[in-house]
Amino acid sequence: MSTPALWDRFRRHLWVGESIGMRLDISRMKFEESYFDSMAAPIERALRAMAAIEKGERANRSENRMVGHYWLRTPELAPDESIRTQIENTVRQMREFASKIHDGRIRPQRGDGFFVVLVIGIGGSALGPQLVADALGGPEDVMAVLFLDNTDPDGIDRVIAELDESLEQTLTVVISKSGGTAETRNAMIEVAAAYKHAGLSFAKHAVAVTGEGSELHRKALAEKWLATFPMWDWVGGRTSVTSAVGLLPAALQGLDVEAFLAGARECDAITRQVDPQSNPAALLALMWHHAGNGHGEKNMVVLPYRDRLALLGRYLQQLVMESIGKATDRAGLVVEQGLTVFGNKGSTDQHSFVQQLREGRNDFFVTFVNVLRDRAERSAQVEPDVTAGDYLLSFLYGTRAALAENGRESCTITLNELNAQRLGALVALLERAVGLYAELIDVNAYDQPGVEAGKKAAAGMLELQRRLLAFLREHRETSRTAEQIAAGVHSSDEVESVWQILEHLAANPDHGIRRIQPGAPTEAQYQAM
Amino acid sequence: MSTPALWDRFRRHLWVGESIGMRLDISRMKFEESYFDSMAAPIERALRAMAAIEKGERANRSENRMVGHYWLRTPELAPDESIRTQIENTVRQMREFASKIHDGRIRPQRGDGFFVVLVIGIGGSALGPQLVADALGGPEDVMAVLFLDNTDPDGIDRVIAELDESLEQTLTVVISKSGGTAETRNAMIEVAAAYKHAGLSFAKHAVAVTGEGSELHRKALAEKWLATFPMWDWVGGRTSVTSAVGLLPAALQGLDVEAFLAGARECDAITRQVDPQSNPAALLALMWHHAGNGHGEKNMVVLPYRDRLALLGRYLQQLVMESIGKATDRAGLVVEQGLTVFGNKGSTDQHSFVQQLREGRNDFFVTFVNVLRDRAERSAQVEPDVTAGDYLLSFLYGTRAALAENGRESCTITLNELNAQRLGALVALLERAVGLYAELIDVNAYDQPGVEAGKKAAAGMLELQRRLLAFLREHRETSRTAEQIAAGVHSSDEVESVWQILEHLAANPDHGIRRIQPGAPTEAQYQAM
Repeated sequence: MSTPALWDRFRRHLWVGESIGMRLDISRMKFEESYFDSMAAPIERALRAMAAIEKGERANRSENRMVGHYWLRTPELAPDESIRTQIENTVRQMREFASKIHDGRIRPQRGDGFFVVLVIGIGGSALGPQLVADALGGPEDVMAVLFLDNTDPDGIDRVIAELDESLEQTLTVVISKSGGTAETRNAMIEVAAAYKHAGLSFAKHAVAVTGEGSELHRKALAEKWLATFPMWDWVGGRTSVTSAVGLLPAALQGLDVEAFLAGARECDAITRQVDPQSNPAALLALMWHHAGNGHGEKNMVVLPYRDRLALLGRYLQQLVMESIGKATDRAGLVVEQGLTVFGNKGSTDQHSFVQQLREGRNDFFVTFVNVLRDRAERSAQVEPDVTAGDYLLSFLYGTRAALAENGRESCTITLNELNAQRLGALVALLERAVGLYAELIDVNAYDQPGVEAGKKAAAGMLELQRRLLAFLREHRETSRTAEQIAAGVHSSDEVESVWQILEHLAANPDHGIRRIQPGAPTEAQYQAM
Repeated sequence: MSTPALWDRFRRHLWVGESIGMRLDISRMKFEESYFDSMAAPIERALRAMAAIEKGERANRSENRMVGHYWLRTPELAPDESIRTQIENTVRQMREFASKIHDGRIRPQRGDGFFVVLVIGIGGSALGPQLVADALGGPEDVMAVLFLDNTDPDGIDRVIAELDESLEQTLTVVISKSGGTAETRNAMIEVAAAYKHAGLSFAKHAVAVTGEGSELHRKALAEKWLATFPMWDWVGGRTSVTSAVGLLPAALQGLDVEAFLAGARECDAITRQVDPQSNPAALLALMWHHAGNGHGEKNMVVLPYRDRLALLGRYLQQLVMESIGKATDRAGLVVEQGLTVFGNKGSTDQHSFVQQLREGRNDFFVTFVNVLRDRAERSAQVEPDVTAGDYLLSFLYGTRAALAENGRESCTITLNELNAQRLGALVALLERAVGLYAELIDVNAYDQPGVEAGKKAAAGMLELQRRLLAFLREHRETSRTAEQIAAGVHSSDEVESVWQILEHLAANPDHGIRRIQPGAPTEAQYQAM
C-alpha cells in the first residue's frame, strides 16, 4: 500500500472529537472496508446492551449487581433519586473535606497541617489513583501522595521510612470496597503501629473509603476516624477511579477533580452514540475484536509517548484482563477468553522490547498514545529547528511506520494536551471500549470469580501454618522433618505446602522456629525454640 | 495429580544453590520425565556455545563483536590481558570516584557536597541501574538517585522541578554506549540548560559512561567533565548492569557493588556446569523452550512477591525480548522468534490480571520470585500466629496452586533474602538463561537490527520537518493545507507525515506555526507567523 493510499485510508477512518481534544486513528489496523458492515449487528447489540446497563440493568448477573460507574460523572442518569443524591453528596463532602485539610480546619494531632497523603489500597483501589497521581501530579502538588499496595513487610518498611518525620503530617487514606482485603488490612495495621510508635493516634490521621457496613467502615466509625466515604456495590474496583477511590486522593493532592469528571462525562456522551463510526469506544472495541478474532489472539501493547502516562498500561491491563479474562461466556459455555495487555512508555520501550515487535513474533497490536502539546512552556532547540518534543513525535510515528511496513498493526489515540479533563475522557473511553468488547464476546465484564481460588488456597496455607505452629510448640522436645510434621497435623497430602511454610518460618525470627539441616533441604528438620 | 505425587516431583526437580541462597522449582511446568533426555544434545551444544562465548568468540556475528559481560565479574576469564586490566581499573576508578564524591574530595561548584545522582540514559542504559536502585536502595541511601529515560519535554520538566534547589548538589551521570542516543542527548541538553539557568557549570556536575571516542566521550573530555568511565563494544546494553552502567550509579547511591559482583560471579560459576540438572540457567532455558515449543508460543509472566523487585519484569522484558525477538535465525532463515515477557509484582497483580491467568486464555507461564526473609527486623502479628509476610507467602503459593489446578504452568525462583549479592546472582542467572535459550533456538542474542528501522523512519520525519519549516517561512504570505505543503516540499507521498508534523508544530509555540481550521482537521491550513 503506497502512502497516498494510506493517507486516504487515514482520512477516511480518522475519528475526531474536538470537544474532548481527542482523535483516534485506526488506519494501521488491517481490516477490510467491508468489516464494519459485517460487524454492524453485533456492535449495535453491544451499544444497546450498554444503554441498558446505564439504565440500571443488573448486568453483573453473577453477583446480581447493577453497573453504575457511568453515573458517577452524570448523576442525573442514575436509575433512582437515592443513588443520584449519594453520588452528588459524596463529591461535595469529599471536596469539603479536602478543602478543610488544605486550609487547616482539619489538623493532625501535632504540627500545623497535613502535607502528605498515604493511600493504602490494592488492585482497583490503587491503580486508578496511582494513574491519576502520576499523570497529573508533580512537585508543586498541594499534598504529596504515596501508595502502599501490598502486604510485603519490606515494602511497608520502606514507605514508612520514607515518611519518617513527616508521619505526623501524613493523612492515611485506607481504600477497600469490601473492607476486608487482606493486603490492605495488613498494611493498615503496620502503618497504624508506626503512628502509635511515634506517639500519634492513627484514628486522628485516618480516612476510609469503603462499602457501608463493612469491617473497615465499622472500625473507622468505632475509632472515630477523620472521615469515611462510601463505595457502592454497583461500582467495580477496576472502574472506580471516578468514585471516591480516585477522586479523594486526587482532591487531596490538589488536582482538578471537577475537570476530570467533566472530561469523563463528555466522553461518555460521545461514546453513547449509536453510529459506531462516530463512536471511538465502538471503534476501539471493534479493532480489539478484529485483531484477535474475538478471542484475544493478539496481545495489546500500550505505548503512550509521555512519561506521565507510564502507568496507563498497568491501569488498562487490569481494566481489560480482569474484565475480559473469563472461563465462560454468559451462557455458561467454556470459552477461556482474554485479551493480554502490557506496555510502559515510548520512546523508552523502543530501546527495550520494540526489537521483538518489529522483527519477531507478530502476535500483538500496539495502541499508541500521542499528546500534541509537549510541555507547559516553550521548548529550546536541541538541533536547528528541532525540539526534544519533535523527537518524541518522530519516534512515535517512526516506530508506527516501521511496524506497519512489517505488517504489524497499531491504533493511535491522540490527545491535544494532557490535563485532568483529557485524562478523564481517556479513562471513560477505555472503560466503555472494554464494556462494548465484553458485549461483543458475550462475557460478564463485571465479576472476577477467578480471584477467589487463589485467596481460598492462601487461606488454607495460613490455616495450615497455625496448625503446624501449634503442633511444633506442643512438641518442642524433638526436631522433625516436613513429612513428619505434615503427618503430625494430619495433612500428609499437603507436605509440600508444609515444607514451604516451614522454610519461610525458619527464615524469619517471628515465630521462633529453627531449622536443622542434615542433608537435602527437603529433608531438613524443624523445631520450635 | 495428587499432592503426594507432586511432592515427589517437586523434590526430584528442586534445584538448590546454598552458596548463592537460591532455589529453582520447575515442578509445575508440565514436562514429561523423558523431556530432559530428549533435550540432552541441544542443551549440551548450547552450554558448549556459551563456553566458547566466554573464551572470546565473536558470538555477535552481525556486528562482529565479542560478548563479554561474564568477564565483568570475573576479569581473569577475559580473553586477553588488556581487557582484564580495563575491567579491573574501571571498577577501581569507579569506587575511588564514588568515595571522593561521598567524602567531599570532589565537590560541586556551590555548597558542601553532592547528595543527589541524576542518571540520564535509556533502554540498556537505564533499566539495569533502575532495577538495582529500586531493589537495593531506600531513604537511607548515601545519595538519592533519580532517572531521566526519555525525550519527553514534560517528563524532563518534572524531574528538573523535583530537583529544584538540590540541583546544585546533583551529580548528573550521562550513560550512552554509542554516545549518540538521541533521547539521552536531548535530556542532557535540557538538564545542562537547567544548570546554566541556575548559574552553574554543567561540566562541574557531570560524568559520562560511554564508548571511547564517542561523541559523548569527546564532549566530556573537551568540556572537562568530572570523570568518564568506559563502555566496551563487547558489552551489550541489556547486559551492562555489571559494567560501569550499573555499578557507577549503585556505588554513588552507596550500595555494595562488590557484593553485587560477587553474587553474579558465584552464579556464573554455577551456571557453567555442564550437567543441565545441576545448572539452574539451563533448567530455566529448557523450561522456556518447553513452554513455548521453542517458538515463544506462551507469554512469560514475571511475578516477584516483593515490592523492591517490581522492575524485574521490565528488566527481563528487555533482556529477553530484545535478545530473542529476531526475524531470522543464524542461518538466515526467517523464523520471527520471540518470547513475550511482562509482569509487575505479587500479590498486587492478583488483584489485576491474575483473573485472566486463572480462568482465561492459557497462553502463558508464570515465573514466581519468592524471597524467604520478610524484612530486616521482626514482624508484628496481624492475626494470631500470622504476620504480613506469612500472608505474602501464602498468596504466592495460593496463586501457584490455583493456577496449577487449572493446568496453568509456573516456575518459582526462591531467594533466601534480597541483598546486593542475591540480586547479582539473579541477574547472572537470567543473563545466562537468555544466552542458553538463544542457542537452543539458534538466534543471535546480541544484536538488535530491528531497532534501526524505527530510528531511520524517525530521522526521516525530522528531516521532513526541517524542509517544511523552511518552506512555510519562505511562503509566509498564505496559509496552505498539508497536501499543498507536501507538494511544496516535493513530498506528496508523505502527506500523512506532513500532516502529523504540522499538527504537532501548531500545538506548540516553538516554531511559530499557526493552524487555521475551516473544516475537517485533515483539511486545516497552516502558516508561519
